[in-house]
Parts: sequence; structure tokens; C-alpha cells
Amino acid sequence: MSDAPLIAGVELGGTKCVAILAQGPDSIQERVEIPTVSPEETLRAIEGVIDGWRGVAALGIASFGPVSIDRHAADYGFITSTPKPGWAGTDLAKRLAARYGVPAGFHSDVIGAALGEARWGAAAGLADLAYVTVGTGVGVGLIGRGRAVDGLTHSELGHIRPQRLPGDDWLGSCPFHGACVEGLASGPAIAARTGIKGADLASDHPAWDGVVHAIAQLLHAVTLTGVPRRIVVGGGVIVGSQFLLPRIRQALRRSLNGYVALSEIEDVDTFVVPAMLGHNAGPLGAIVLGQQALTGH
Amino acid sequence: MSDAPLIAGVELGGTKCVAILAQGPDSIQERVEIPTVSPEETLRAIEGVIDGWRGVAALGIASFGPVSIDRHAADYGFITSTPKPGWAGTDLAKRLAARYGVPAGFHSDVIGAALGEARWGAAAGLADLAYVTVGTGVGVGLIGRGRAVDGLTHSELGHIRPQRLPGDDWLGSCPFHGACVEGLASGPAIAARTGIKGADLASDHPAWDGVVHAIAQLLHAVTLTGVPRRIVVGGGVIVGSQFLLPRIRQALRRSLNGYVALSEIEDVDTFVVPAMLGHNAGPLGAIVLGQQALTGH
Repeated sequence: MSDAPLIAGVELGGTKCVAILAQGPDSIQERVEIPTVSPEETLRAIEGVIDGWRGVAALGIASFGPVSIDRHAADYGFITSTPKPGWAGTDLAKRLAARYGVPAGFHSDVIGAALGEARWGAAAGLADLAYVTVGTGVGVGLIGRGRAVDGLTHSELGHIRPQRLPGDDWLGSCPFHGACVEGLASGPAIAARTGIKGADLASDHPAWDGVVHAIAQLLHAVTLTGVPRRIVVGGGVIVGSQFLLPRIRQALRRSLNGYVALSEIEDVDTFVVPAMLGHNAGPLGAIVLGQQALTGH
Repeated sequence: MSDAPLIAGVELGGTKCVAILAQGPDSIQERVEIPTVSPEETLRAIEGVIDGWRGVAALGIASFGPVSIDRHAADYGFITSTPKPGWAGTDLAKRLAARYGVPAGFHSDVIGAALGEARWGAAAGLADLAYVTVGTGVGVGLIGRGRAVDGLTHSELGHIRPQRLPGDDWLGSCPFHGACVEGLASGPAIAARTGIKGADLASDHPAWDGVVHAIAQLLHAVTLTGVPRRIVVGGGVIVGSQFLLPRIRQALRRSLNGYVALSEIEDVDTFVVPAMLGHNAGPLGAIVLGQQALTGH
């Protein structure tokens, strides 16, 4: 690890940002948390931290979104149409790349976490995987051949509209789609449906059936992209209710029904695994983004 | 075009195979159709054709599946678990590559058609697109940065289980999943539901509502992968009932509900377009696979 380049990784979150100076998880030289306030104030605080670091070979930035990851677009490297007050149209990557004059990698926070788990976490050693987070929102990051699967924009597969359980006609909580996966299984959806936070909801509460089903339908779709050799699952809902993962695995197995006859998928206990890096997944993923920007692949 | 390498492209279909010797659509030097019978007889006939061709720089093979596109797997280049009698476990790519001693590209027929449409058809000039075919089956090919999006295997997104129209509880025709998109919208599904072939079904038949909805839900998911800048739609159901595409576009627009605020997607008439290359999409896609094998990217 000692000969790996030193990268400044920044994860921008809705409530706080994390900046780390690191080569990898075993060589984090600095780690600073910064509250997310206005864009200008937040970015100046981040710059104040990075200004003090020496030997930075590249930058990696993983941000809440939506973000523009389209290198053909004029707003590449920006947060685009977020409802977060003041943040729509904020330049992140061009500003920081210009300030430090080093290569800068940029992507969504979900892809950041996916890259972190792919390099050093629950899918270490695999070039093809998916990371699914179920928390305040539902996000999917697909990694193929070691890089983000994208094109026009980043994945928003958490907003697909799944098959429902028979007799379940709850309308869901997504302001755009109602009963999409995020509208059925996110933390706010669970709270809206039951009046109780997920972490406080008994494991035998019937609302979990719909949550498990919606997440399993998302994993069914993610599996059928063909990309992942493993699906890493994290986020507050999963971490807060540990009984969910075994149920999700069984629901996924029933839903796929043996259609893809590959051992990697059929062994569902190793195909769907919990995230390992916790709150460091995003910042470490930013390190990977910086490394990829440095090497050009 | 005259300085482009000469490629032998082979599309293996369930009823017939097409072998072409070409640089591209305007320079097809040979085109031979071969009935698909037993694997050995069919492959010998294909070899008999290619044996007579001179100057072949590379091979491209696009096949009905499922196929193994995982270069780490022992069965890379094989048709794997197909129900087609005699064809499971058939080596295609290794056999042909060894016989001719040239680089060989290999992928599913759907990715073949997608690459053909991406290079010379309805998405010419775009590196990021999806090709969706609705016919005997429902297939999705995703192309990102000019190459197949894959990993463990090729996409089978036609088998996601979509949200249903209110009150529609028809069980669907897929032997694995019942009411997945293929089980709701493929040609056999339409015939199973109505007793009438899709091409003969009146445009105001109520069964079309469920078909349009299922296809739109698939396009919703394909859009939310983030990959495509355009979705090219083809296959017998689409070609046979031209009134479908406008309905699918409107259903997709309603379903996404403005969630991805990008002009490429919001202009649904240019986002979802009909395939252009028809029966040559697959063989021409095989030419692209051969070109990619030759150049290594």
C-alpha cells in the first residue's frame, strides 16, 4: 500500500461531508467531517481542509444527487436538480479539479460506496457487483469491469415500480411514483405506512412483508441486468433490522425461481451479503474514484 | 469504409443462422442463411461457408441464449442451459476462434442487435443506448461507452416482474415467472391471453393495455439504469402492430413522471425510437463484435 498514490477523497452527504486523505482503508492519514450547510460555505470548508494536505495526486468526489456524470454535458461534475435548498446547479468537480490541478474522479454517493465495497469491502476482489442501499432513499450502484455502469446518468433503479404482494394496495410514499421500491421500502416509507420507525418496528409486524417483497423485486431486477456477481446490501433500514436480510434472500430466490442457472446466483447466501465498510464506504469509494481518474481506467 | 477490416459475422438464431462477410452495412460481400438444425450439422455448415472466405481479420458471433459471456468461466463462448433440444452446452466461440486463428468476439443475439443499431442504425453515433426486442421473447441489450453492459452474464431484464394495471390479474405465460414482462407482452403471451396472434389483434382490443403497460414498465426500468441516451425498440410484436410505439411512449412518460429531468429522456419521441436495421441488425452487430475483438476495446 505504501507505494499507492495519496488521494483526497470527499463524500458529500445531505447532512455532513467527509474528507479523507488516504491510500486505502489501512492508510487513512486524515479524516475530517464537515457539516453540509450552504454550498459556498461547505465547499470553502472542504477546500480549507484539502489546502492543508500535501502530496495529493488526485481527487475523488462522491456526492448526493442527482449529479451530472455525463462527460459530454456542460454541467459535468455538478449537483443538478436536487430539492435540497440552494444546492441545485452546484459545481463540485470542476471547481475542485481547477483549484488543485490534479485529476478528479466524480460520481454519485451510491457509486462511491459501491466502489469502496468492491475494492476493500464485502465484494473485495470482484470486478462486477451491485451495491443496494435502503435507507432514507433506495439507491443502486452497478459496477462492471471495475467501473461504474452508467451512460447518460447514474442509476435510479430504486424508483422502479415493482410487482406488489397480492392484496397489498398501499399507495406508497414516493412523490413521483407512489409505490416504487423507494416509496414502499425506504425508511420514510416504512414510517409513513406504520407510524413507527423501522428500527422500532417488531420483526413480526405485517408491514415488513411488503418491504421485503419490494426489496427482493429490486434485487430481482438488479440480478437480471446480468452485471453483478454479488449484491452488497446496506443502508439504515437493513442495518437497523437485521432479520430482514435472510427474508430478502429467500424472497429473491423464490422470485427468480431458478431462471438464471448460475451457481453464483443460486447460492443466495453468498450472492446477497451485508455491506462491510459502514460509514467509510463512501469516502473510501471516493479514493477509488480518484485512483481511477489518475490512471485513466 | 474501404480500409476497415473484413469481418466474418455469424448470428445464430433459433430457426436459422446468418453468416456475413462484411466491413459494414454498405460493404456486405457475402450473406448466407443456414437452417438451425443440430449443433454439429449447423456449425459444420457455417464452417463450410467461412472456409471459403479470404481475408477474414476477425470473427463476431451473436447467438440465441443463454450464452456464457464470462471470460473467467470454463464455458465462455458456449450456449449454456437452453431448452432447445441438443444445444445446451454447445461451444461456439472457442471452436470457431480455434479453427480460424483470428480474434473472436462473442455475445448474445440481443447485444448483437444492440451493437448493430448503435453503430449503423437507430442510435448511430451514440455510445450509450438500450435495445429492447418484443417478439417471441422480450430481450434487453444495454450498451455503455460503446460496449455491452454485462458482468456475470447478459441481461435478462425482460423477466422483471412489473407493477400491474389496476384490476389486471391475468397470471401471465412465463413458465418461470408468470407475469413478468415477457409473460405479459411477448407474442406467445398475447396469443395465450387472447387466442389471437398480436398481428391480427385489433388496435382497440383491451388486451393491448396490459401489453403497453408492461413494456412501458420495462422501459421505465431500463431508463433508470442510467445508461441509455436512447432506447431502440424492435421485435415482431412492435413491428407487427405499429400503433403500439406511441402508446408505449406516453405510458413511459406518465410512469417516469418527470423524475429524471434530462432533455434526452423528456423528449420521449426521440428517446424511444423504432429499430432500423431489421433482420440485419444481428449479423451487423456480429461484425461490430468482431471489430471490437480485433481492436481489444
